[in-house]
Amino acid sequence: MNLRLKPLLAVALAVATVAAAGTAVAQQAPKPEQLIKWRQSAYQVLAWNTGRVKANVDGTYNKEDVIKASNTIAALANSGLGALFAPGTETGKGWHETTVKPELFTDKKAGEVAAAFNKEANELAKVAAVGDVAAVKAQLGKLQGTCKACHDDYRKKD
Amino acid sequence: MNLRLKPLLAVALAVATVAAAGTAVAQQAPKPEQLIKWRQSAYQVLAWNTGRVKANVDGTYNKEDVIKASNTIAALANSGLGALFAPGTETGKGWHETTVKPELFTDKKAGEVAAAFNKEANELAKVAAVGDVAAVKAQLGKLQGTCKACHDDYRKKD
Repeated sequence: MNLRLKPLLAVALAVATVAAAGTAVAQQAPKPEQLIKWRQSAYQVLAWNTGRVKANVDGTYNKEDVIKASNTIAALANSGLGALFAPGTETGKGWHETTVKPELFTDKKAGEVAAAFNKEANELAKVAAVGDVAAVKAQLGKLQGTCKACHDDYRKKD
Repeated sequence: MNLRLKPLLAVALAVATVAAAGTAVAQQAPKPEQLIKWRQSAYQVLAWNTGRVKANVDGTYNKEDVIKASNTIAALANSGLGALFAPGTETGKGWHETTVKPELFTDKKAGEVAAAFNKEANELAKVAAVGDVAAVKAQLGKLQGTCKACHDDYRKKD
């Protein structure tokens, strides 16, 4: 290789490397508005599926439908929803202005509330697989208790 | 029992029964606007998680993160998203006006496209559990191919 081209090549490679790294960083750090939209969406999907379980235990019970709904709830609980509450998402608009209270980002108890939701969601998936209606109803109640606990403390009133 | 009260009791029971049935039906058949909002939310959650997998295969690979994202995608694929495309949801507004084309509700091929998405989503979860980056990247490509196929045929252009 022409020796005088080497520095130029090194610069080109460095630029390409930085550009590639920049792309990766951009993909790994979506904008706050995007994160807020995703978390609002995730909670809608949770509402859809807890509603499905409730309709089953209150009406005609379909074991397969409850399993599908409960597995979706558990997968979302295990998905790492905390990443959607990254710094910078304390305020802002996704589908609508976030209703989260600032305390969620500072209160040490918030982690416990999230862990309780995770535990009860995974338990619901286990109970749903067995298919005992009374047990599913009781476990749904426990799960909804963790939803309410978080809403009471960390969601602004309408 | 006083015989003259019997007809009144019968009417009261009938009213209560109809009211209870009405509640159950209402829970099992949410309004079209609600279904559209839920499906728009579900696709946002899918976008969040496919984006996570892509960021991992393009950047620093975190096996656990990819497993969480892939399991969420698979759970949603298995959740019964078809219920969110119930009759009456061909048009309408959830978070925004639906962008679905009417052909989705009549075209026999739509079921095949949905089945392909389901297959590739479940395969992604399997491949993610193993953790070979190249295999995950290839499988993500197959999954995204099924997304694009559906968007090309059944989503209105912006």
